[in-house]
Amino acid sequence: MPHIQLPEGLQGIRGPMAFRPETAKPLNELAEILLHAPNSLDPAERELIATYVSSLNDCYFCQTVHGAIAAAHLDGDEDLVKRVKADFQHAGISDKLKALLVIAGKVQRGGKHVTAQDVEEARKVGATDVEIHDTVLIAAAFCMYNRYVDGLATWQPQEEDLYRERGKKTAREGYVTMSKEYIPQAELETQGA
Amino acid sequence: MPHIQLPEGLQGIRGPMAFRPETAKPLNELAEILLHAPNSLDPAERELIATYVSSLNDCYFCQTVHGAIAAAHLDGDEDLVKRVKADFQHAGISDKLKALLVIAGKVQRGGKHVTAQDVEEARKVGATDVEIHDTVLIAAAFCMYNRYVDGLATWQPQEEDLYRERGKKTAREGYVTMSKEYIPQAELETQGA
Repeated sequence: MPHIQLPEGLQGIRGPMAFRPETAKPLNELAEILLHAPNSLDPAERELIATYVSSLNDCYFCQTVHGAIAAAHLDGDEDLVKRVKADFQHAGISDKLKALLVIAGKVQRGGKHVTAQDVEEARKVGATDVEIHDTVLIAAAFCMYNRYVDGLATWQPQEEDLYRERGKKTAREGYVTMSKEYIPQAELETQGA
Repeated sequence: MPHIQLPEGLQGIRGPMAFRPETAKPLNELAEILLHAPNSLDPAERELIATYVSSLNDCYFCQTVHGAIAAAHLDGDEDLVKRVKADFQHAGISDKLKALLVIAGKVQRGGKHVTAQDVEEARKVGATDVEIHDTVLIAAAFCMYNRYVDGLATWQPQEEDLYRERGKKTAREGYVTMSKEYIPQAELETQGA
């Protein structure tokens, strides 16, 4: 049972987002820019970083829904998502993404764990400064989203099919568009959204 | 030295925010709503939660600047800020704020550490659902900001006076207004900010 009275029937982060639309707005805009907007890292790569960090933080909702979004961007390759979570160094992903996942894993433990050498290794395999920046911020942001979802004990049903459908839709439409389904629009409009 | 090439002369989070204005926009809007906008928790209480979590995460920049903002809201009472960081249970703050700091400290360790009993204790001393929600999200958000600042090895000068002046100004003007000082406006305007 959630720690506070959240709107019913909304999984994971959607409950507190509908409860507090004022904070939902920047939270969705941040996810949109980091994960869905055009970027030299493709959406699958960015969703895999989000999924990996959420698995390190043991957040069922976030790792499942972002894993489903990543799989949707990968033509349904759920095995690759599982391999990245279990042992990304031996998964079928680029050396650049492996180096960025090393950085993301360090950020999850704490920002000071990232070393100049980790960053140098990522550069050697082609990572740009913006890609390194975005990796650090995606990993840091999921240390927030994961704590938000679990810190309020949100409702997280365990049927993976629920996440699969939602993942396909979010992969297509992005976070800001999807949020209109469950966040009271009147409140967003008064903020000029 | 920062891990990536950031604009020079900008302390802490300001460097990466000027480097990537697209993500700076929602990051500042989130801070504005959580810490500066009208709320039944006053700004000093919310800044103390942010400062406490940043001290647990050992982020020098965030704990110093938000400590300075908290002190500015407290008529310059820097001792109270120090006591909250060192041992909040014996600091001169309300029982409600103590109960919320317990929750914030659990969120810092991970969302699942927050128990129904922690929340019940906060309710007994007057915390509302919105206040509990905002406490969880402030604590979660600082687990992001702290990692962003340290994960990129940003420039964090150690002269406390620099933070004092900045703290007073942010306490008065808020985060979105302050951000206009160092974030390229042209880029923000194309986003409709």
